[in-house]
Amino acid sequence: MSTKPTVQYSRLMSGPQDSIIRELLELAARPEVISFAGGIPSPEGFAIDEIAQATQYVIQTEGARALQYSSTEGEPELRQAIAEFETSHGVETSPEEVQIVSGSQQALDLIARLFVDEGSTILVENPTYMGALMAFKNCAPKFELLPADDLGLNPAELDASYKGARFAYVMPTYANPTGLTMSEERRKLLAQKARELDLWLVEDDPYGELWYEKRAPKSLRAWAPERTLRLGTLSKILSPGLRLGYICGPREILDKVSLLKQSVDLHTSTFTQKIAARVMLTGQLQAHLPKVRALYRRQGTAMLEALQEFMPECVTWTQVEGGMFIWMTLPESINTTELMREAVANNVAFVPGAPFYALGNNHNHLRLSFVTVPVPKIREGIERLAQLIASKL
Amino acid sequence: MSTKPTVQYSRLMSGPQDSIIRELLELAARPEVISFAGGIPSPEGFAIDEIAQATQYVIQTEGARALQYSSTEGEPELRQAIAEFETSHGVETSPEEVQIVSGSQQALDLIARLFVDEGSTILVENPTYMGALMAFKNCAPKFELLPADDLGLNPAELDASYKGARFAYVMPTYANPTGLTMSEERRKLLAQKARELDLWLVEDDPYGELWYEKRAPKSLRAWAPERTLRLGTLSKILSPGLRLGYICGPREILDKVSLLKQSVDLHTSTFTQKIAARVMLTGQLQAHLPKVRALYRRQGTAMLEALQEFMPECVTWTQVEGGMFIWMTLPESINTTELMREAVANNVAFVPGAPFYALGNNHNHLRLSFVTVPVPKIREGIERLAQLIASKL
Repeated sequence: MSTKPTVQYSRLMSGPQDSIIRELLELAARPEVISFAGGIPSPEGFAIDEIAQATQYVIQTEGARALQYSSTEGEPELRQAIAEFETSHGVETSPEEVQIVSGSQQALDLIARLFVDEGSTILVENPTYMGALMAFKNCAPKFELLPADDLGLNPAELDASYKGARFAYVMPTYANPTGLTMSEERRKLLAQKARELDLWLVEDDPYGELWYEKRAPKSLRAWAPERTLRLGTLSKILSPGLRLGYICGPREILDKVSLLKQSVDLHTSTFTQKIAARVMLTGQLQAHLPKVRALYRRQGTAMLEALQEFMPECVTWTQVEGGMFIWMTLPESINTTELMREAVANNVAFVPGAPFYALGNNHNHLRLSFVTVPVPKIREGIERLAQLIASKL
Repeated sequence: MSTKPTVQYSRLMSGPQDSIIRELLELAARPEVISFAGGIPSPEGFAIDEIAQATQYVIQTEGARALQYSSTEGEPELRQAIAEFETSHGVETSPEEVQIVSGSQQALDLIARLFVDEGSTILVENPTYMGALMAFKNCAPKFELLPADDLGLNPAELDASYKGARFAYVMPTYANPTGLTMSEERRKLLAQKARELDLWLVEDDPYGELWYEKRAPKSLRAWAPERTLRLGTLSKILSPGLRLGYICGPREILDKVSLLKQSVDLHTSTFTQKIAARVMLTGQLQAHLPKVRALYRRQGTAMLEALQEFMPECVTWTQVEGGMFIWMTLPESINTTELMREAVANNVAFVPGAPFYALGNNHNHLRLSFVTVPVPKIREGIERLAQLIASKL
């Protein structure tokens, strides 16, 4: 005789939970919807042939090693490849300064658990990546907002009142969700202020390689390597299905990250690490990148043009120079969470802006992603969305 | 000018941390050491050819899908394959009752975070798997010990004083570290007691397929499916480098697990999931298992024989019928943590017993693993260890 068990969840899991990313991924999967919702990269951007070759090489030359347990820090050749990759972009990095993680989402989780107690302050941009907010919320922090103006984070206004935060989480390049990029001057100033205020910087950079005309300014870590944890990922430039990300930072901190990761999942897949290392060390990733950039530039440009053509005058959006996202601001009278249900009924989808805000009531923004939608569909979807918005004015 | 940053870790990471598994994996890697330390499966047991074939199939037939993001719950075909696998062993399981995780270590982390607040009680065996203790400790629980006798967990002694625990963590089959297996009668009684006391059971079963002469009794979940979370893994029977584990349990609980996992690492590698699903759904895993069992039986038997031949009379050990481990008890005068340093100096390694105990001072046990060492080396290593122990008497 089976009786219904009592379930007592931890406090962490007892509160109401929004699962907006989940629902969106489900919506994005319905074939009749032109979805600008998902942050899902175009499969055309995956280095499938290169991965196929590398996989065959790895199995044939070191199959037993590739299928065995690995070290928590990561496979030596992938750490090497990533150190070279980072160094080639102007920040001298040794393999010891690289920790491999299971996608950069895991880095967010590990870093939060490493630094954050209940009630600790985390400084965030507003809006910021909702997946980061979700990961951080598991540690019950207090969010405070970094100072900002129309260009995004404005380090000039950082003063002593920001001291004592456990870290500042920033996405300086083609940010999710805004698409904005911080200038070199602001990066330098942020690094300088971080020193003055003794702040740690968590620099999340999933999109930096996806520039259209020219590379964005050098990473934040270049200006404050001693107090920056830089998060990178292979999800947007190689394949998200391999689940490979990394953290670059001082070895002393990475030792702690590694200790925590060991209890969390022992290590990241040896097999996928070795495949990625092979693609990188043979130069095939570098050779592949221009294709990805050209693809996204084409689609991003198409969306900017369609917005210009179809959107009512009272709607504004960010002029992006890379990455995967455009951020739209609608008149205050429109609530984008409500708009979304209607949009989906009209077979077009986006992400409402609200879940990207740690604090405050910001209901009239939305995020558009153009990377999974082919150019003709981008025009069609934007026209559909513009008509819906126009009908609300 | 760079200044040394202040580091303020969370309370979780501020205490002293033992990293015994880490150190052991490092020791085990030194080629001159005959290591009975690591829980690292023999590469001879990996289904390399089958994985190679499946990998080629997956890349050729669905490369773009295999390299794309997946759902947090897991790839449908792997959930299907695991549901069939579990069902074939006597517990009717639907794919919806399967959550894929990045190795069963991740299941331990997720389950702890799902159920445990600071000070919550977790019931554990003593000794138990040290990796579980590590994962649970991240949530700062209070450990209480399950009643036991010489055969291990004794459910007859479970009474109302055990009520209120968040869950009981048990490894009923070829346990790590003891090698012991719970009888069918005790499994049934444990399930019955769990109902009476309204307890959740977390059944960790990484070694169940590694039986030598006959399969162990049916899983605990068979007797209390409504209140059991059953953890399985492909690490010991297919490959640990793929990092694939799973949780079977009520969908209501798995929904919460999935929500948490999403914020922790989004999902487990699509690529490795599809490869494993292919190996399982083509029947190749089933066909491969007798090879793994024969390999471990041969090595386990060799170790039992060598122990019989070489060990002093005052030493006892468990008579194992499957799995990867033998548990040794030395005279009280010997501290195995101290013994280990000398052993390593003599080029033989084991795991001292202390870290497997949640509570109490238990210094005179050690764990032997025979799965990575070929038979002649097993004899040589056990003789060496026996001589060292004899020299201490």
